[in-house]
Amino acid sequence: MPAPFVTLITDFGGHDPYVGIMKSRLQARLADVPIVDLTHAITPFRPEEAGFWLWRSAPQFPPGTVHVAVVDPGVGTARSLVAVRAARQLFVAPDNGLLGLVWQGSAPAEAVRVTSEALARLGLSATSATFHGRDLIAPLGAELAAGRCRFEELGPAVTPEPGRLKPAAERERVIDGVIAAIDRYGNLLSTVEASTLKTLRAPQITYKGRRFPMVNTYGEARNGTCVALVNSFGVLEIACSCGNAAETLEAEWGTPLQAVEGSMELNAGANQL
Amino acid sequence: MPAPFVTLITDFGGHDPYVGIMKSRLQARLADVPIVDLTHAITPFRPEEAGFWLWRSAPQFPPGTVHVAVVDPGVGTARSLVAVRAARQLFVAPDNGLLGLVWQGSAPAEAVRVTSEALARLGLSATSATFHGRDLIAPLGAELAAGRCRFEELGPAVTPEPGRLKPAAERERVIDGVIAAIDRYGNLLSTVEASTLKTLRAPQITYKGRRFPMVNTYGEARNGTCVALVNSFGVLEIACSCGNAAETLEAEWGTPLQAVEGSMELNAGANQL
Amino acid sequence: MPAPFVTLITDFGGHDPYVGIMKSRLQARLADVPIVDLTHAITPFRPEEAGFWLWRSAPQFPPGTVHVAVVDPGVGTARSLVAVRAARQLFVAPDNGLLGLVWQGSAPAEAVRVTSEALARLGLSATSATFHGRDLIAPLGAELAAGRCRFEELGPAVTPEPGRLKPAAERERVIDGVIAAIDRYGNLLSTVEASTLKTLRAPQITYKGRRFPMVNTYGEARNGTCVALVNSFGVLEIACSCGNAAETLEAEWGTPLQAVEGSMELNAGANQL
Repeated sequence: MPAPFVTLITDFGGHDPYVGIMKSRLQARLADVPIVDLTHAITPFRPEEAGFWLWRSAPQFPPGTVHVAVVDPGVGTARSLVAVRAARQLFVAPDNGLLGLVWQGSAPAEAVRVTSEALARLGLSATSATFHGRDLIAPLGAELAAGRCRFEELGPAVTPEPGRLKPAAERERVIDGVIAAIDRYGNLLSTVEASTLKTLRAPQITYKGRRFPMVNTYGEARNGTCVALVNSFGVLEIACSCGNAAETLEAEWGTPLQAVEGSMELNAGANQL
Repeated sequence: MPAPFVTLITDFGGHDPYVGIMKSRLQARLADVPIVDLTHAITPFRPEEAGFWLWRSAPQFPPGTVHVAVVDPGVGTARSLVAVRAARQLFVAPDNGLLGLVWQGSAPAEAVRVTSEALARLGLSATSATFHGRDLIAPLGAELAAGRCRFEELGPAVTPEPGRLKPAAERERVIDGVIAAIDRYGNLLSTVEASTLKTLRAPQITYKGRRFPMVNTYGEARNGTCVALVNSFGVLEIACSCGNAAETLEAEWGTPLQAVEGSMELNAGANQL
Repeated sequence: MPAPFVTLITDFGGHDPYVGIMKSRLQARLADVPIVDLTHAITPFRPEEAGFWLWRSAPQFPPGTVHVAVVDPGVGTARSLVAVRAARQLFVAPDNGLLGLVWQGSAPAEAVRVTSEALARLGLSATSATFHGRDLIAPLGAELAAGRCRFEELGPAVTPEPGRLKPAAERERVIDGVIAAIDRYGNLLSTVEASTLKTLRAPQITYKGRRFPMVNTYGEARNGTCVALVNSFGVLEIACSCGNAAETLEAEWGTPLQAVEGSMELNAGANQL
């Protein structure tokens, strides 16, 4: 049975034909599977950002979905390709940290290193040294989505490269996360999951030495004030109502934030980086 | 009979997976209806800009088309969802002014407030407080497009929120419009319709105290000079041939422009804001 | 037999509904042909940039593919539409230099000027003076892709306008090319084809008075250093590993670069513009 969806996420942008060429390779091998562009605006050279979005987006797709991810600064060098299976979905990407968060955050998950033999059996080889998304990763995703090859046949089990993002860590009455994506509106999306946040009573959020109250939705804050909320991707987010939190707070990708129980004294030192 | 097209217009941008996630909800409910992205680059917090483009784009689609529009700064608060039927097409959006111009400019038009009961009957409820485009508006558009629910069943008749844009007003020998969109090329699109403009003899266009001659197409102007013309969306537009009118004229969204009969003296004062 | 693919390339950007409206015209006439967006971010008023990408992208599509290209500053004036047939693919565009490189670089190629009579036979006429992409070029591409009209019936044979880009010129032990596109990563794509480059022994690349070594892939260079390579579109490219060559080298579109045999002395004067 073919996959219900194939998703794409890359750092190719919309400036050049790279996305279109890669999609045409998918479509040539997949008659009727809808292809969903998650985004092609991942920050170049930051595979973990793509991994964060995949981690949060995958649960919004049905079982059987195949995710194709290409942020690949090491293309053409010795880095491997890796495939992950979690929650009955498949992920294919360069093994450069992109799938580290999906792997760690989606237990139980399996991973295999994709061998050149497996690719050769599918008739795939790199015709370029600089565009394996087109030559290998998209066609491999299409073969998986079409049901013409099986995850187990791709290669030996591996532990994917972990990358620079980890699931938020819980310690007593504190959850330590990081800013894992900054969206179009300047909202700061963190690695702190809603399910983890529930373990705290009356949580408050601290970032860069400031404390933010929790609300339910953007409209609850006065215009221009920054608040924290659980967003539609199930993670903690800092947002400014009708404003741009990233600019207001001079936020940066990868910086730490904390959720603490409301009754705790804020340890200001905890946010010094 | 399913809709011939579903169109999407949002302020989500292309930076994040929001568009892809929303489209996947449409595709899951609509086997074979083509989805057309009008644009996802609407200025955040400016629903009327989306409404302007819908007003001008809808006549370019066949009867039965369903338009899904999401510019929704009030998501999760008390604002309603509204559906409009005009010229045998359907529009679904937050009731925040987005559909004001479609409603006023497409007489006869009907509108209903979408009740939570109607949504519940379709199995729809908000699983998040911040992404009703994904949770409610797109699935509702899909159900309408698939013919699985009827406009009349959505809720009671209402008058949509008017928003900040109105159809251009005619007074004797003068038409008062505003700049309703600034496009990629810096062209200034106004609310003045071609049909209204025809009521003036030898019209001339004034904007910010300057007068612009009417031409038929961009190439008729000398490079770098600004002219006025009726554009391919049927409204009056100010453009600079091989240049950027918005930059040249320091134009701003929502500012007034006028069409006057060529024989009239320009009342300079009329353009002072 | 319908075309396997229709591709689109324009300078419309993603800011406005122009792409969506044009695609809806294609889809209305093409039930099941996949439409591939090559890019809509061509620099406005630079048709040759679209032509360069078409020249390099077309060989990556199967025979029968129809390419629709719209960069059209002269829309509504006397400029013609032109169709080109090369390598069993078809291209339709304004005759403003856009297809010059495809024509010169894809011998043997045929070209015809599209007459208004041919358009009229297909039921096509310009309903606007400013959007022939929507009114004529896309529907014409759809008719060709659907097999409802034949290339030979479109009009008399012509030589397309050459435009500002030519295939790289070979002279003894030197190949003269130009920068024909600057991509999202700041990579500089040139008109020098891999096949031509092979005629030089140990080629070195010069640009703006600097010499760049040839490598096989980005990862072979130290971070931040600029190198030359044959890219995945089969042309010579200058790139900075984990950096932006366009910014580092202050590169500009249309400027010359040279490939020279490694044993030759670099004639610094050759690169003074």
